[in-house]
Amino acid sequence: MTVLEQLAERFARIAKLDHAMTYLGWDQMVMMPPAGSVGRSEAIAELASLRHEVLTAPEVGDWLALAESSVSTPLDRARVQEMQREHREATALPADLVRARITVGSACEQGWRQQRPDNDWAGFVENFKPVVSIAREVADAYRAAEPDSYATRYDALMAQHCNGDKPETVNAVFAELAERLPPLLARVMEHQKGNPISMIAGPFAREQQVDLGRHLALRLGFDFDSGRLDTSLHPFSTGSRGDLRITTRYVDEDLFDSLQATAHEIGHASYEGGLPERWANEPVGASRSMSVHESQSLFFEKHLFLSRAFQVGFATAIHDSFPPLEGYDSQQLWRSQLGVGPSRIRVEADEVTYPLHVLLRYEIERDLMNAAIEASDVPEAWDASMQRLLGIDTRGDFTNGCLQDIHWTDGAFGYFPSYTLGAVNAAQLAASIDRDLPDWRANLGRGDCDVIPELRDWLGRHIWSRASTVDADTLMREATGASADPAHLLQHLERRYIDESV
Amino acid sequence: MTVLEQLAERFARIAKLDHAMTYLGWDQMVMMPPAGSVGRSEAIAELASLRHEVLTAPEVGDWLALAESSVSTPLDRARVQEMQREHREATALPADLVRARITVGSACEQGWRQQRPDNDWAGFVENFKPVVSIAREVADAYRAAEPDSYATRYDALMAQHCNGDKPETVNAVFAELAERLPPLLARVMEHQKGNPISMIAGPFAREQQVDLGRHLALRLGFDFDSGRLDTSLHPFSTGSRGDLRITTRYVDEDLFDSLQATAHEIGHASYEGGLPERWANEPVGASRSMSVHESQSLFFEKHLFLSRAFQVGFATAIHDSFPPLEGYDSQQLWRSQLGVGPSRIRVEADEVTYPLHVLLRYEIERDLMNAAIEASDVPEAWDASMQRLLGIDTRGDFTNGCLQDIHWTDGAFGYFPSYTLGAVNAAQLAASIDRDLPDWRANLGRGDCDVIPELRDWLGRHIWSRASTVDADTLMREATGASADPAHLLQHLERRYIDESV
Repeated sequence: MTVLEQLAERFARIAKLDHAMTYLGWDQMVMMPPAGSVGRSEAIAELASLRHEVLTAPEVGDWLALAESSVSTPLDRARVQEMQREHREATALPADLVRARITVGSACEQGWRQQRPDNDWAGFVENFKPVVSIAREVADAYRAAEPDSYATRYDALMAQHCNGDKPETVNAVFAELAERLPPLLARVMEHQKGNPISMIAGPFAREQQVDLGRHLALRLGFDFDSGRLDTSLHPFSTGSRGDLRITTRYVDEDLFDSLQATAHEIGHASYEGGLPERWANEPVGASRSMSVHESQSLFFEKHLFLSRAFQVGFATAIHDSFPPLEGYDSQQLWRSQLGVGPSRIRVEADEVTYPLHVLLRYEIERDLMNAAIEASDVPEAWDASMQRLLGIDTRGDFTNGCLQDIHWTDGAFGYFPSYTLGAVNAAQLAASIDRDLPDWRANLGRGDCDVIPELRDWLGRHIWSRASTVDADTLMREATGASADPAHLLQHLERRYIDESV
Repeated sequence: MTVLEQLAERFARIAKLDHAMTYLGWDQMVMMPPAGSVGRSEAIAELASLRHEVLTAPEVGDWLALAESSVSTPLDRARVQEMQREHREATALPADLVRARITVGSACEQGWRQQRPDNDWAGFVENFKPVVSIAREVADAYRAAEPDSYATRYDALMAQHCNGDKPETVNAVFAELAERLPPLLARVMEHQKGNPISMIAGPFAREQQVDLGRHLALRLGFDFDSGRLDTSLHPFSTGSRGDLRITTRYVDEDLFDSLQATAHEIGHASYEGGLPERWANEPVGASRSMSVHESQSLFFEKHLFLSRAFQVGFATAIHDSFPPLEGYDSQQLWRSQLGVGPSRIRVEADEVTYPLHVLLRYEIERDLMNAAIEASDVPEAWDASMQRLLGIDTRGDFTNGCLQDIHWTDGAFGYFPSYTLGAVNAAQLAASIDRDLPDWRANLGRGDCDVIPELRDWLGRHIWSRASTVDADTLMREATGASADPAHLLQHLERRYIDESV
C-alpha cells in the first residue's frame, strides 16, 4: 500500500463518520422528537471527537509529509493538498483554545436566545467580549500555521470559509460593492416608485404548495429516487450523491417564499449530487467552498427560477395548483416577486439590498478582528452603516439590529462574505452561460425541456465535477475567464430591477 | 479515575456509536431514498468496525480483568459482568471466522431473495451448506470461550439471543409445548367449528387507520414528545429513552393488523423507554434479552390490546373512526380477531399456532447445529413437522415452507426460540399481574383511565427498570416467583380461545 493509499483509507473512515453526522443532523432538524435532543447532541459530539482523533492521529502527519514529496501528478498533488488543509485546520488550534472557543461560544449563544428578544445588548456584550477575544486568538493561530498566507487576522478567518478565494479579491469585491451598489439601489427605488410592485395576496393552501414545490423540484432536475424534500423551520440542504436532503417551509400568505427556498436548496443539492463519485471519500472530492456553494444555490434561485423566462413556463403550473390566480399572467406573477426596499432584517432582504446587509457585517467583523473596533463599539458601527448603506435609523433596536444573527454568537467571523461572494459568482457564471448557451432564455421561455438539463450539464462540467481539484479563484477563472468580479452582479441587478428584462 | 470509570467511559463511546447506527438504521428503513442504499450500508459497516475496534482494544481486556477483582457491590459486579459479556462476544470469534460468516451469509441471503419466489431449494441448499458449517464453527468458538457453560452447540447459539435464559429451561419449555399444544389446538379448532369466527370486511381508509393508530398509541402510554410512529414495510421498533421510533403498516382489508402491530411495537418501545437513565451508556442498562423484549411486546399486543377488557373501551374509538362499524359491538369486534387455524406462514399465524411454527424451527435448527441432520435434510424434516404439528402437507412447497424466513440465510440459528419464550414470559407476567392487580380487567372494562398507567408501573418496576442487572431467569423468578413455565401460556390460550373469557 502506498502512503497515498493509506491516507485515502484514513480519509474514507472520516467520510463515513461525516456521513453519520450529516444524516443524524438532518434527522435532528426534521424528524427527531423534542425529548431526543440531549442524547442526539451527545452522540454527535462524540462522533466529532472520534473524527478529530482519527484525523489527527500522529501517523497522519507523517504520511502527509511523505506523500507531499512522493506524488507526481497534478491530481495527486491536489489530493494531498486538500488532505493537508483538513489536517492543518484540525491541528492548527491548541486543544485548550478549541475548548475555550466552544465554552464561550455556547454561553454567548445560549444567552443570545433570550437577549435578542429582550433587546438586551448590555447583557449580550458581556458574553460577546470573550467570543471576540478568543476569535482573535484563533485567527492568530491560523496565521501562525501558514505564516505567509494572510495579511490580517480577518483574512485568515475568511479563508476558513471562502476557501481558495484570495482575501484581496474578497476585499476588492466589497470595496466596489460599497461604492456602486447604494446608487444602484437608489435608482431601483426610484424606478419602482414609478412602477409599483405588489405581492399577490394569499392564503395559499399548504397541500397545494407542497405539490407545486414538488413539481418545481422535478422540473429543476431533482431526483426523488436520490433525495427527499421535507419541511423544517429554516430551509436547508444536506446529504450527498444518492441521498440529498433538502427542506423548505410554507408561508400561508406568500406563495413564492417556499418555491424560492426550494429552488435555492436544489442548487446546493445539485452541486453535492454532481461531485465526482470517484473522490466521494476524499477532501479533494468535496465541494470547493461556501462561496462556490452559495453561487450554485443563488444561480438556481435567482438566475433560473426567478428568471423571466422560467416564470413564463411555470405560470401554468401555478395556475393548475391555484386556479384563483389565473387572473395573473406570467409577467404579473414574475413581477410580484421583484419588490425592492431597505429593511432591517438580512434574511428577509431582497436581491438588491441583501449584499448591503452582508457588506455591513463584513466591515464590522473585519474591523473587530483587526482590532480597529472593540465588541462594545458594534451597535454604533452598526447604526452608522445602516444609515449610510440603507438609510435606516436603527438606534436602540438591537433585536432587529446587531443581535439579529446567530453567526457572531459562537465566533463564526469570516462566514458572512461567502453569501455575497456567492451572489457575485452566480451572476458571473450566468453571464458565461449567456455567452456559451446564447439561446437558453429564449428556449426556456418557449417551453423547451432540454434547457434545464443543458444548464445542469454546463454547471456540472465547469463547477460540480471539478470538486476541490483547484482553488475557488482558479475554478472561477477557468469557468468564466476571470476572478470574481462584481460587475456581473451589478449588471444583472440593473437588467432585472430597472430594465425588467431578465 | 478508577478502572471501572475508565471502562464506563469506553462503553459510553460505544453507546454513542450504537446511537448513530440505531438512527441511521431507522432512517434507512423509513426515510432514505433508494439510491442512498450503498452509501448508507458502507457507513454503517464502518461504524460497526470502529465499534469493534473501540470495544476490543487491548487495554479493555486488561481493565476488565482488573475490574473483576476490584468491584464489591452486586450492582458493580453486574456492570462488569455485562461489559465482559459484550467483550467476550466481540472477541470470541477469530477475525477470519467473522469475515467468513459475513461472506457466506450475504451470498446466501442474496440468492434467497430470488430462490424463495422461484421455489428453488436445490439452488438455495448450495449456499446454505456453508452457512450451516460456519455457524457450527461459530458455536464451537462460543463454547470454547466459556468451556463449562453449554452442553451443546445449539445451546451456545441460543445463549447469544436468549441471554440469561438457561438452555435447559428453554429446552424444557419446548418439550412441554410439543406435548401439550397440539391437543389444545385441536380442541380450539373443534370449539371454533361450532362457534365460527369471521373477520370484519374492509376496505378501511388509510387516513382513518392512521388516526386510530395514533389514538391507540396515546392510550397505551406512548409519548409523541419522546417518539415517532411511522410506516414501513415490516413493523419494527428502535431507539431509546427520549427518542423511541416505532413503525407499523396499514392493510386495506384488515383493520386490526396495523393496530395489533402498533400495540406490539409499543411494548418493545415501552421497555426501551423504561430502562434506567442512569445506566443508559452501559451494557448493564440495556434490555435483558430478546425473550424478555418479546414478552413486553406480546404483553402489550396479546394481553392488553387483545384483552376483552381493553376492547370494550376501544370499541368507541373504532366506531368514531369508522361509523359503518357501529353495527358491531365490542364483543363482536373483539371476537373477529380470534380466528385460529393451521397455516403455512409463521408471520401470519395466530396466537395458538404461532408457537408451533417456532417449535418446528427450534427442532430443526437444534438438530442442524448438533449435527443430527444436515442442510440437505431440512425439507424432509420441515414437512414431517408440519404434518405432525399442524396437519399440513407442505411437500414441494419451499416458497411457503422452509424458504419462508430470512433468519437462516445468514446463520442466525438460536434466534427463533426467543419469540415463543417471549410468549411464555408474557403470559406468566400477565398471570402475576392478575394476582397483584386483581381488578385491572374489570376496571379497564369500565373505562378506568388509571389502569394502563398502573400496568406500565408494574412492568416498569419488575422488568424495565431492572435492565440487565440480573439474568433473564432471575428477572422472571423475582417478578413472578418462578422460571419460565409454559403452563401460563397454555392456560391463557384455553381461557381466550375456548372459554372466550379474557
